[in-house]
Amino acid sequence: MKSPLAPARFPDLPNIAGVEAAIGRAGFYKHDRPDLLLMRMPAGTKAAGVFTTNAVGSAPTDWCKRALSAGRGAARGLLVNAGCANSFTGPAGEAACKRALEEAGAAIGVETREMLAASTGVIGVLLDDAKIASALLTMELGAVSWPDAAAAIMTTDTFPKGAGAVCEIDGAQVNIAGIAKGSGMIAPDMATMLAFVFTDAALSAPILKTLLRQETETSFNSITVDGDRSTNDCVLLFATGQARTPPICDAKDARLANFRGALSSVLRDLAIQIVRDGEGATKLVSVTVEGARTNASAKIIARTICESPLVKTAIAGEDANWGRIVMAVGRSDQPVQRELISVRFGELWAARNGMVSSDYDEAAMSAYMQRAELEIAVIVGPGPGRATMHTCDLTKRYVEINGDYRS
Amino acid sequence: MKSPLAPARFPDLPNIAGVEAAIGRAGFYKHDRPDLLLMRMPAGTKAAGVFTTNAVGSAPTDWCKRALSAGRGAARGLLVNAGCANSFTGPAGEAACKRALEEAGAAIGVETREMLAASTGVIGVLLDDAKIASALLTMELGAVSWPDAAAAIMTTDTFPKGAGAVCEIDGAQVNIAGIAKGSGMIAPDMATMLAFVFTDAALSAPILKTLLRQETETSFNSITVDGDRSTNDCVLLFATGQARTPPICDAKDARLANFRGALSSVLRDLAIQIVRDGEGATKLVSVTVEGARTNASAKIIARTICESPLVKTAIAGEDANWGRIVMAVGRSDQPVQRELISVRFGELWAARNGMVSSDYDEAAMSAYMQRAELEIAVIVGPGPGRATMHTCDLTKRYVEINGDYRS
Repeated sequence: MKSPLAPARFPDLPNIAGVEAAIGRAGFYKHDRPDLLLMRMPAGTKAAGVFTTNAVGSAPTDWCKRALSAGRGAARGLLVNAGCANSFTGPAGEAACKRALEEAGAAIGVETREMLAASTGVIGVLLDDAKIASALLTMELGAVSWPDAAAAIMTTDTFPKGAGAVCEIDGAQVNIAGIAKGSGMIAPDMATMLAFVFTDAALSAPILKTLLRQETETSFNSITVDGDRSTNDCVLLFATGQARTPPICDAKDARLANFRGALSSVLRDLAIQIVRDGEGATKLVSVTVEGARTNASAKIIARTICESPLVKTAIAGEDANWGRIVMAVGRSDQPVQRELISVRFGELWAARNGMVSSDYDEAAMSAYMQRAELEIAVIVGPGPGRATMHTCDLTKRYVEINGDYRS
Repeated sequence: MKSPLAPARFPDLPNIAGVEAAIGRAGFYKHDRPDLLLMRMPAGTKAAGVFTTNAVGSAPTDWCKRALSAGRGAARGLLVNAGCANSFTGPAGEAACKRALEEAGAAIGVETREMLAASTGVIGVLLDDAKIASALLTMELGAVSWPDAAAAIMTTDTFPKGAGAVCEIDGAQVNIAGIAKGSGMIAPDMATMLAFVFTDAALSAPILKTLLRQETETSFNSITVDGDRSTNDCVLLFATGQARTPPICDAKDARLANFRGALSSVLRDLAIQIVRDGEGATKLVSVTVEGARTNASAKIIARTICESPLVKTAIAGEDANWGRIVMAVGRSDQPVQRELISVRFGELWAARNGMVSSDYDEAAMSAYMQRAELEIAVIVGPGPGRATMHTCDLTKRYVEINGDYRS
């Protein structure tokens, strides 16, 4: 069943010249959809990645970190499988990942060291690379169909996720196209997901890395579905250089402003789509915290609210139980001023300055809670710190989906 | 519907001479049970408390902290109401709390300054002390019926919680009787609940405070239902001195060993009962983490596992998805050694030394998961740190209960 919060349709994404894709089915995931995506980028493509901070990690994230570092960001191939995370599989998992990349690289004429890998699925299950080798036999590279590519990396996702932008660097037109998957095990650092973004800009790996890190902070690192941070998350940004943009050697270069804005909007769009597809979600919720001591403190408070099961279940029940938001502020262990705490749903004040708002209107509040998209603003003190996090509600369906994920 | 994990019956608790109780209904809570408990302790009773660390707090916890400090632990009365937390109610809430205590104190002949208060219920609703005043008119003190007292403080609890012990201090018999409530919004510091423990030992307030703090660490601070730490938690320990135990001036006095052990077992028993009554719970789960760098680090890891929605839903689904436990270890941000991580369910190894166990047996594991009480052991490294936390599963019923708590 498609999430009720899904966008009406998959967006039209710009073509990124020279980027090709092949889709197949290795049979890792329980559905009967394609679960394998292989991509080839033109010679000279540079890449950068941001990876999960989960200490357990996975064979593919380990591989990508090493390969990007050893190859100074040169990357021409990407192999993604859905259904088997190949995390916590020890040296055998590492070897299986390498063999899969060797096979895939040979199939598309790319050196193994220029191949990147990403996996999503059950943790602790060794990747059966023979299944990949066998699937590769019937896969053929061609022009990228973004909806098909996005669908091939889905697990519990109910819709494929894509976002794109056209921008310019110093007058040269630049295209950006990105796809992502993610639904459960979503939390910052990284939000548990895979995302692959492609551009034809000519940018060095260090610049890509800086831009990606910075723009991840307010996109993928500002969403949470369940606070569970996966072992396999990664966002990879590839730049083919086909757009022949001028050489730029500093991420702070003013000529990057337009590109940075476009990249940011693509990443945020993908991130919000992941929340829209949060497992069992029926509400998209943004929580903005203001008045904290610092932005970082505001983010911790916003995240505590977004991950509180009691806040999330109240939202699922369309109950404006704002006292639970106050509770979550209080349990965030951040400096707050109790007598200034105020809570607003949309334009309706629930609490003002340390107690229920004098114009609190239960009927209006109940009507607001019936919306599919909610905006909650919380003031916690007189400070300059501010942050917004995005989350969804916690429903019975989340429990159902996750009670028997492996079967 | 009573929790399937409820004990067979309420235990027989020892009498604590001179302690009396009255039960009534003020009408705060949506059920039609009693929701008001008033207790009187004999002259000379000393008390100590441990309170929530939630920064928002509540009028009653603020009152107790001040009263215990100003009166050096002298406390002869206790008024508990269920259904209205009187948290985040500003100066008006403070005044209402004081008026309620004045009325209750007058009714039982105890000075207001020797009265303690505790509330549980919806946050942000001002206490209507007139309802208490009116209920007091029909309440009469008498010998304590522990099951009735425990029932009068329940909210979403499905069974009353009590625990007791008989021990000795330097040869003199000492009795301990305790009651608690708690079901949702349960997390360490404090686990979200109320607990009141009475003993006839003659102990000073500082000694009571030391013992209570220490023994709370492995009892109420080692359980979590949903990670949400309430604004109103408190554990109060009263010592009437009627047992005429010898004067003891140091909490480290060896003559306290037997009492300390008995107090610890009462607190742990009550704490585990709270988990057994976790909202929607069908499984009681203990998670022991070993091999961490320190005990504190082990506790953070155990808590991360216990609060992971993905771990909890898998347990609800009786799915031995041990990879999610590994994920939770990895996201705890504690120092761990990936190649040593091992996971055991009861006597069955799921993972050993960084990968699936060579003798992993899905059938045996599935059979184990069907038990109502599960023991999960996780090794995270070679260190000396060890901790056990107790939790329950996350079911659809939790979502249901909390989706419309206020209505």
